Amino acid sequence: MKIALAQLNYHVGNFESNTKKIIAAINAAKNNAADLIVFSELCVCGYPARDFFEFKEFIGLCEQAAYQIASVCTDIACIVGLPTLNLKAHGKELFNTAWFIENGKVKGAVNKALLPNYDVFDEYRYFEPETDFNCIDFKGHRIALTICEDLWNTIENPLYITRPMDKLIEQQPDVMINIAASPFAYNHDEERIDILSNNSKQYKLPLFYVNQVGAQTELIFDGGSLVFNDEGTVIDELPYFKEHIAYYNLDKISGGKSIITFDHRHTIKPAHTSDIEQIYQGLLLGIRDYFSKSGFKQAILGLSGGIDSAVVCALAAEALGAQNVMAVLLPSRFSSDHSIADAEALVKNLGCKSETIPIKTVTEAFELALKPQFSNLPFNIAEENIQSRSRAVLLMAMCNKFGYILLNTSNKSEAAVGYGTLYGDMCGGISVLGDVYKTQVYELANYINRAHEVIPQNSIIKPPSAELRPDQKDSDSLPEYDILDTILMEYIENRKSSSEIIAMGYDEQVVKRIIKLVNTAEHKRYQTPPILRVSPKAFGMGRRMPIVGKYLS
Amino acid sequence: MKIALAQLNYHVGNFESNTKKIIAAINAAKNNAADLIVFSELCVCGYPARDFFEFKEFIGLCEQAAYQIASVCTDIACIVGLPTLNLKAHGKELFNTAWFIENGKVKGAVNKALLPNYDVFDEYRYFEPETDFNCIDFKGHRIALTICEDLWNTIENPLYITRPMDKLIEQQPDVMINIAASPFAYNHDEERIDILSNNSKQYKLPLFYVNQVGAQTELIFDGGSLVFNDEGTVIDELPYFKEHIAYYNLDKISGGKSIITFDHRHTIKPAHTSDIEQIYQGLLLGIRDYFSKSGFKQAILGLSGGIDSAVVCALAAEALGAQNVMAVLLPSRFSSDHSIADAEALVKNLGCKSETIPIKTVTEAFELALKPQFSNLPFNIAEENIQSRSRAVLLMAMCNKFGYILLNTSNKSEAAVGYGTLYGDMCGGISVLGDVYKTQVYELANYINRAHEVIPQNSIIKPPSAELRPDQKDSDSLPEYDILDTILMEYIENRKSSSEIIAMGYDEQVVKRIIKLVNTAEHKRYQTPPILRVSPKAFGMGRRMPIVGKYLS
Repeated sequence: MKIALAQLNYHVGNFESNTKKIIAAINAAKNNAADLIVFSELCVCGYPARDFFEFKEFIGLCEQAAYQIASVCTDIACIVGLPTLNLKAHGKELFNTAWFIENGKVKGAVNKALLPNYDVFDEYRYFEPETDFNCIDFKGHRIALTICEDLWNTIENPLYITRPMDKLIEQQPDVMINIAASPFAYNHDEERIDILSNNSKQYKLPLFYVNQVGAQTELIFDGGSLVFNDEGTVIDELPYFKEHIAYYNLDKISGGKSIITFDHRHTIKPAHTSDIEQIYQGLLLGIRDYFSKSGFKQAILGLSGGIDSAVVCALAAEALGAQNVMAVLLPSRFSSDHSIADAEALVKNLGCKSETIPIKTVTEAFELALKPQFSNLPFNIAEENIQSRSRAVLLMAMCNKFGYILLNTSNKSEAAVGYGTLYGDMCGGISVLGDVYKTQVYELANYINRAHEVIPQNSIIKPPSAELRPDQKDSDSLPEYDILDTILMEYIENRKSSSEIIAMGYDEQVVKRIIKLVNTAEHKRYQTPPILRVSPKAFGMGRRMPIVGKYLS
Repeated sequence: MKIALAQLNYHVGNFESNTKKIIAAINAAKNNAADLIVFSELCVCGYPARDFFEFKEFIGLCEQAAYQIASVCTDIACIVGLPTLNLKAHGKELFNTAWFIENGKVKGAVNKALLPNYDVFDEYRYFEPETDFNCIDFKGHRIALTICEDLWNTIENPLYITRPMDKLIEQQPDVMINIAASPFAYNHDEERIDILSNNSKQYKLPLFYVNQVGAQTELIFDGGSLVFNDEGTVIDELPYFKEHIAYYNLDKISGGKSIITFDHRHTIKPAHTSDIEQIYQGLLLGIRDYFSKSGFKQAILGLSGGIDSAVVCALAAEALGAQNVMAVLLPSRFSSDHSIADAEALVKNLGCKSETIPIKTVTEAFELALKPQFSNLPFNIAEENIQSRSRAVLLMAMCNKFGYILLNTSNKSEAAVGYGTLYGDMCGGISVLGDVYKTQVYELANYINRAHEVIPQNSIIKPPSAELRPDQKDSDSLPEYDILDTILMEYIENRKSSSEIIAMGYDEQVVKRIIKLVNTAEHKRYQTPPILRVSPKAFGMGRRMPIVGKYLS
């Protein structure tokens, strides 16, 4: 039989557009004489729908959309994901379900058994885990159909006490299909291939894996759907970061084994692309989908002449088109000449729009207004933050007047240690670099400049500075970024203790100070924009920390 | 035997202060000749510790603190809550555990079986559910010890497939003890009594229930620990919103039944206090603990002359002392005379500090700075927001200069429909009224004025206005608050659909517009301060909505 894998970009809650897209794919697959088309997990409503699942009306709309999809499934079968009601007396109200639709009718339903509830995942919030497992027979094949995490209860880290495939294999399937919604992180593609390959090897079955693609606010889904032979070898890999439909033949050979053949082999990345190239592609998709799915076109950002805002500006120009990006220079009395020159050079290189709005008169007005209260107290962080917040007010005023969305330009190193001004440079609709450490921002800048200079070399080589007081340098108050970022990664991504990090050879005082900074900045991060997630541990939904907690703070 | 119930206020992650407090209670109970003292769920680290649980070092510190507590348990037994490692090969790494400590040693461990993972709860993120159940024998009694949710799998709404007491009852216990961390909502005390009473009735056993008290950022725990006889009647109820240790005698009578006697009966609220009085007490505790646990003393807020900021100011003065509250009047060209007079009257009534900082020069400086970009475009929301954001910059500058924490004064009705300025009046360290609808704010004002006028009558009776343009009224763009709040409550608290709300008799256009406003304001609420939770469905951790989702928006 001929199987189509549909790797599509859904929009959470947008039933009209999701249904239309799914039906168009079914029609395309019919034209290609496919017998079965496979869509990804919870495709009907998009993933993650979060607490939309708590609305009965929403569940009704999911079912209604799935029946509409079923009605076009004549001469083709399809697998779609949707939430369905748990009709048993006990347990949560919903299942995370895959419907197998044939001849316009729901022929089988498979519910997810392993519900991820770590990092960004909250599935046990909504769904009851399935405990009963059955294969689906179709056109002479017996399909072991599972949903994403169902194949992820690894031998090394068995988070769950059951393994659905151990039950399904008893029914002697000849092929596995797994539908997923597995978000991107720069190290995730290799882990995913490893785990799926191990399943294919362990159960000696070919495996079709269909992921969704596209960004849903902070979560970026990279696609990269996969096809394995029964020895766990990747025999095809769909493109990353874009929609695609691919076709395969599944045939039984003597002995009852099934083998997969296909005409067009997609590019299999030889040793996978570099982390930075993946991050670059992920961020472009994240920006593009944030704007398109929220119905906006035009981005604005403050351009300081430093590397962070330069990288965000270049990414936005690539994602949205330079004509849709407004870069605003907001110089103060502490802005150096090179900052302005570097910002202007970038604007020229990109061809984006720009304005210059000096902040001197505004900050002076604030200082004058506060003179009775501040009297002659010395210049300190209060005046530094007035500058940063004045810029935010000006940028937001431009948003309100002209319909831009403000892009936040803070990086992960700053967000981690609280080196930023709440309601100032921490503003924005979406944070582009909030999951990218400063050292990675440099790598991104060099990647952006791979063909020719886009980001001025001077923005890359000069010492980083917030320029909120004379001759300020980031290194006045923070360790050098290569040291800082390593400590942060050990603490944030790897959850190491201070003593473990010190044992790696880092200075005790520095490590303890950094961890304390991270923990005391929780109140700031709570109020910052959603952050495009590109790492295995981003700030935001995936990292939930007490604010007035008193641990290492 | 004599049992002490310790209803204490812990601080998440603050092992030093939690351990000291627990040991002091043990010593007090020893002096009172108690045989057993019972503390609340996860008391060693405080609840909720959230992702602190992902740090192995944190788990080690919990165990270390519990052993330190055990070392003083001579001549007295104690029950303490802590996370412990799951030593089985499969499942999550931790259990949510109650240790029964006797003679300085851990005599028994009970793990929580039912893990709440709805609303503000994320317990399945960290813990493996227990499937094995055993009573604990102590001094001739057999105790069925459970943890919070373990008693909450109700007949009406059975979220879980097991019921721990159904297993424990087979071992013929003569008493139940339940340790909890059950957060406050104005309707929660009655629900809690109902559910616990039903357990006591169903299993025909007396029941001791120990809750924690105190606020952990947004979550307020109200205490109100309970004692039931074996017929499900409340025979004692500890105070709400404060720490308390109470003592009871548990004795076996003929037939093997246990009965509870005690000397001092605490006040049992006859028909429970009004919702508004509970909200008032909860908010006071929430403010007080936010400041004390984050190490701050002084609050600041902008005082507009309107009711919201007046109520927040009065609450802060009561919670922190008037001398620790700085009210700042920030009049603009659109501020009416009565606004300033009403604000000044409140300051006088409360005796708090105040400053006046007119914003005219600042907003003019912004408008001048933006003149090249805005040219002659008409005054609109951009200029309105400049006023609100200018106030925020001034208030935050005062925070940075003098060490205040800014109190947010937005109410739940505004937060719901997005009637507020991001980085303007939506700023603050903590939102005091973000879970209190406008109609409830009026009730709070009247409650605050119950003995004498604190909040000027004029602030209560005048039509609400943001005063961001001439003669603006809230009712220009929103329905009257009694209608608005009912629609919001049906949608937010009760998750009703628009058609269900319309069927209740509300105008279709109004209902649809309101729900759309709620859903499109998600991006604003994402960046607002933590909100003191007083209702069963507050914005924040307990309500997780997609931002670029397209559902009813």
